Amino acid sequence: MFELGVVYRNIDRADRVAADGLASFGSATVHEAQGRVGLMKTYMRPIYPGAQISGTAVTVLLQPGDNWMLHVAAEQIQPGDIVVAACTTDNTDGFFGDLLATSFQARGARGLVIDGGCRDVKTLQQMGFPVWSRAISSKGTVKETLGSVNIPVVCAGMTVNPGDVIVADDDGVVVVPAAQARKTLDAASAREANEADKRAKLASGVLGLDMYKMREPLAAKGLKYID
Amino acid sequence: MFELGVVYRNIDRADRVAADGLASFGSATVHEAQGRVGLMKTYMRPIYPGAQISGTAVTVLLQPGDNWMLHVAAEQIQPGDIVVAACTTDNTDGFFGDLLATSFQARGARGLVIDGGCRDVKTLQQMGFPVWSRAISSKGTVKETLGSVNIPVVCAGMTVNPGDVIVADDDGVVVVPAAQARKTLDAASAREANEADKRAKLASGVLGLDMYKMREPLAAKGLKYID
Amino acid sequence: MFELGVVYRNIDRADRVAADGLASFGSATVHEAQGRVGLMKTYMRPIYPGAQISGTAVTVLLQPGDNWMLHVAAEQIQPGDIVVAACTTDNTDGFFGDLLATSFQARGARGLVIDGGCRDVKTLQQMGFPVWSRAISSKGTVKETLGSVNIPVVCAGMTVNPGDVIVADDDGVVVVPAAQARKTLDAASAREANEADKRAKLASGVLGLDMYKMREPLAAKGLKYID
Amino acid sequence: MFELGVVYRNIDRADRVAADGLASFGSATVHEAQGRVGLMKTYMRPIYPGAQISGTAVTVLLQPGDNWMLHVAAEQIQPGDIVVAACTTDNTDGFFGDLLATSFQARGARGLVIDGGCRDVKTLQQMGFPVWSRAISSKGTVKETLGSVNIPVVCAGMTVNPGDVIVADDDGVVVVPAAQARKTLDAASAREANEADKRAKLASGVLGLDMYKMREPLAAKGLKYID
Amino acid sequence: MFELGVVYRNIDRADRVAADGLASFGSATVHEAQGRVGLMKTYMRPIYPGAQISGTAVTVLLQPGDNWMLHVAAEQIQPGDIVVAACTTDNTDGFFGDLLATSFQARGARGLVIDGGCRDVKTLQQMGFPVWSRAISSKGTVKETLGSVNIPVVCAGMTVNPGDVIVADDDGVVVVPAAQARKTLDAASAREANEADKRAKLASGVLGLDMYKMREPLAAKGLKYID
Amino acid sequence: MFELGVVYRNIDRADRVAADGLASFGSATVHEAQGRVGLMKTYMRPIYPGAQISGTAVTVLLQPGDNWMLHVAAEQIQPGDIVVAACTTDNTDGFFGDLLATSFQARGARGLVIDGGCRDVKTLQQMGFPVWSRAISSKGTVKETLGSVNIPVVCAGMTVNPGDVIVADDDGVVVVPAAQARKTLDAASAREANEADKRAKLASGVLGLDMYKMREPLAAKGLKYID
Repeated sequence: MFELGVVYRNIDRADRVAADGLASFGSATVHEAQGRVGLMKTYMRPIYPGAQISGTAVTVLLQPGDNWMLHVAAEQIQPGDIVVAACTTDNTDGFFGDLLATSFQARGARGLVIDGGCRDVKTLQQMGFPVWSRAISSKGTVKETLGSVNIPVVCAGMTVNPGDVIVADDDGVVVVPAAQARKTLDAASAREANEADKRAKLASGVLGLDMYKMREPLAAKGLKYID
Repeated sequence: MFELGVVYRNIDRADRVAADGLASFGSATVHEAQGRVGLMKTYMRPIYPGAQISGTAVTVLLQPGDNWMLHVAAEQIQPGDIVVAACTTDNTDGFFGDLLATSFQARGARGLVIDGGCRDVKTLQQMGFPVWSRAISSKGTVKETLGSVNIPVVCAGMTVNPGDVIVADDDGVVVVPAAQARKTLDAASAREANEADKRAKLASGVLGLDMYKMREPLAAKGLKYID
Repeated sequence: MFELGVVYRNIDRADRVAADGLASFGSATVHEAQGRVGLMKTYMRPIYPGAQISGTAVTVLLQPGDNWMLHVAAEQIQPGDIVVAACTTDNTDGFFGDLLATSFQARGARGLVIDGGCRDVKTLQQMGFPVWSRAISSKGTVKETLGSVNIPVVCAGMTVNPGDVIVADDDGVVVVPAAQARKTLDAASAREANEADKRAKLASGVLGLDMYKMREPLAAKGLKYID
Repeated sequence: MFELGVVYRNIDRADRVAADGLASFGSATVHEAQGRVGLMKTYMRPIYPGAQISGTAVTVLLQPGDNWMLHVAAEQIQPGDIVVAACTTDNTDGFFGDLLATSFQARGARGLVIDGGCRDVKTLQQMGFPVWSRAISSKGTVKETLGSVNIPVVCAGMTVNPGDVIVADDDGVVVVPAAQARKTLDAASAREANEADKRAKLASGVLGLDMYKMREPLAAKGLKYID
Repeated sequence: MFELGVVYRNIDRADRVAADGLASFGSATVHEAQGRVGLMKTYMRPIYPGAQISGTAVTVLLQPGDNWMLHVAAEQIQPGDIVVAACTTDNTDGFFGDLLATSFQARGARGLVIDGGCRDVKTLQQMGFPVWSRAISSKGTVKETLGSVNIPVVCAGMTVNPGDVIVADDDGVVVVPAAQARKTLDAASAREANEADKRAKLASGVLGLDMYKMREPLAAKGLKYID
Repeated sequence: MFELGVVYRNIDRADRVAADGLASFGSATVHEAQGRVGLMKTYMRPIYPGAQISGTAVTVLLQPGDNWMLHVAAEQIQPGDIVVAACTTDNTDGFFGDLLATSFQARGARGLVIDGGCRDVKTLQQMGFPVWSRAISSKGTVKETLGSVNIPVVCAGMTVNPGDVIVADDDGVVVVPAAQARKTLDAASAREANEADKRAKLASGVLGLDMYKMREPLAAKGLKYID
């Protein structure tokens, strides 16, 4: 359960090699590699196309219309982190803009994942600071009510613990628990090697029906062909 | 009504000239040309901007979280087809990615229209394989339950029969029944010729009020001007 | 309350310098500058990225599925105006396309803000005529029922009076009442000067916690740090 | 594809015994009985709880904000019919109220299924005239634009042909094609007989795991129990 | 435009006879009577069925997650008022519960219309204090940030000025500007007298097609009957 | 992170006195009592009004369109439990109906909380088996793919661990972690005692402004009264 009004300063970050290495596989492959789990809801979209990152989560719990905790979180960022911000209720306000991005980037953050709104999107694209959010909104926020930093949060339907690995690209945002990061990196590598071969076969006209040997199980389920 | 577990192998495709020629007019003109009907719901969006295609429909009925029937459909694709996939319930899972796209493209498909989710969008753009979908999602799917191929489906609120013409661009996705394809092509051509002339007049400052002779009917309805 | 069937021909437009000058600050800064009010709902999105405009509002009240009043509005446009169209009910039909855009542009309009659908988006981008809308839709509309032009409307949750200033960019659409336009321009200028300095400090690694002197109020609210 | 501006006067209605008899089974049983297909989208809700009806469809295609075709449809109603109204675009206006209900009821209609809004809900409940709709709305509509009566329509995601059987209750609205009505009635009867027996066993504490012999297939899929 | 941080103490309330008398006609008739305008969005629903009220508006502008201004508003309530609460952003938190209802009721308020969440709905029903809201939510709110009382607000898409008449029932919430209240009452009375006669005719089997003389205009628009 | 394909048989249930006793306070009071956290999203609604329960969670992770794991979960139910079912993706299918309810009730379950659809709602009300769900749907589901039982799940935006206390009523669903159940019960009791006194004062006409001593902090924030 959420604790309000606390900041955990010392968190265990996932294995660095895995946290850095998962980016190159992308969220779809990583999602499959860890057993088809960990994807945030699909309303989380990049504010500009093309970014593909991974890193370790610094988590934030926000109150609606209030971005105070993002300022508190800035101090907890280390190079290679991605900030993950949840909110105690559905809210689309513009919690984050170019000033906070400048601060986050100076601290070494690679991006932000926020179950809320974001603004200054043109400047953020020019800065190369990617954000995945539920909305884009010019609406600013107040600094009145405490949330927390580095507690477990539910962001866009997925639990994120501080230090977990986040993988984000145009397909969405996937969470890899710190304890599974290395194993998932290995599984993703194996999967990708495997995919290149499949792609070549399919490109040559081989059908998935044959490559995956689906004809027999389809017939067993009763599929009928009608001419 | 849907039949589950069947694949129709021989379908009547719409007139080829019409199926190929409608692309150049775009979905808005085609929609008007066939009497302002046939548009799928507006939640269907292209995964990248700029694609504009038309072709003959191979239809698929999917089960939620299950993309088995897309593999079955691949075998039924002929060059010039567009695959149209509906689902028995609202579902945003990533039924389709770059491997299936490689297979579909090798078979001659021009694109996919899916009332569900799509993934690997960056790769699909690089491949030049356009998709119109209700969501983008990294979530993979299982292969357990039968749907059907080449039955009439309701996709994003619109009935699609196998062989119908699909016209898709940045404005949306329009369905033209096979039997009306040629007539609609002619109507679209006539309409477009007509539009160039109107555009020139409007650009010169002529008002639509005058060009379309609207002042009288507006007055008849009671429109009042107040200074 | 809405009056139906009326067109006000003489409206008081906001101060020209302010109406033209606010564009350069963008919607987020203007929103803050006028006291964090005036933002339309976040479902209003630009049909293509990168446009940033301001201008004086010509308002339109539409009926669902009917774009007649946009033709009536064209005649009321003066150079530097932005057309703002509301609808008597939620509706995503494609009320506006390239022909109307040609006419609006010929009259000197800078763009359109419409709580409804828009079509021909590729052509509109080529023309450089920006639109902010709730949907993109190929669906055309009829010309049967009267609405009004230049009455106060509620567009995407915000009241717009004819002559108010509209500021629109990738972050959203903000309304500045005509009477506050000059004051808001001054406030936005002051704010921006101020932001450059803050940005430099944050980029150098200074924390917002220190720059904004937040540590004391956070402690007063009871924020606890846990190691 | 939709034809606009036509009224089909002679339609083939489904077998009367089936059309009348399916009500008693309810939509969930009928949905299963015809092979788990035919359910409208779940946003279709009854305006008051407790009604459970079946009957033959008189179909209507409406234009947004315009209820003219409901008046046209009234003349086509025969005792035992249920009116099914679709709209050419998503629209929540109050197309239907107590006056039309009085007329429909006088003609022998058993209820209305409308992919739009409904009003006068308190009076409709007092009259015992059930409606399933996507919204409740006081907003009245105009009578300006033609739709059609008794053409095939897509209502809330499901194709309805005139004369099909509609089954509607608190669980939703199911469409049974006329040609399958008798067969579906038989299947529903068989299914219900079967359910009474199952219910008794489950009530006595027998587990579905055992009654349906699921333990072996679960183990085969790899389910693990951990103490 | 919204002013934040102000409370207007002296507001002009609409004519008492009209404010009290409109309740008996209900929102649908009142909506028609004032020219088919003034309806709030249909997501505003009563927390329990059956209430039907009218009264004069005390308006409130809330901040997301903050109900402080409802306490401020309580002092401004006079017998016969209905409190209308808008929020600066979409928010479903439970701003209002049984304690505030007790206070509002003690001051003479007839109900609440809130573009936000409400809680304690069972108790509110027992108290007979009706609420129309966009959501039901147990989530409590803070008291940190100023909004305003008795300024013009946009609530669920409709402008409400303090003192306007609110009519709310199971069909929705309609706003009648104070200046039009008496005229609207007269129009609603005339309309209802008229409806009783129509209802009797329709109940006897007369068709709307004939009663409203629609056959000729339908034919003029081109409606075709096909046997 | 989710594990798929596992059933935990031995779970630690929360203190029985707290798990049983929290029902009487209702979700709103419990939510406040544990520090304004733990509420599921507001789209979770009771299928019939009036039920108010608490109990210990047996958790289930479902796959879209597949209710197999609910049968597996039945065996793990003990008297006083509430089943909490999440799904790996948004899905509204009717996973649960009267047969499963009969089984759950026979095992001693007090209700179901499901982030998916429910059917047979009339029968469930007659049985007195309450369900909170995101949808009502006649659509049945398959039994093909493994999920899990008694793992931590995210249900409607909130983390639920097996054995946690669930409190559900007309206002929504609140989760109380097992470790905080007793403390929360005490806090809820204290809170309620306190509320009766406040209610009496407010009913007598005392304003919250005075009772809560808000006038001074409001003035400090700058609230202005205008006559």
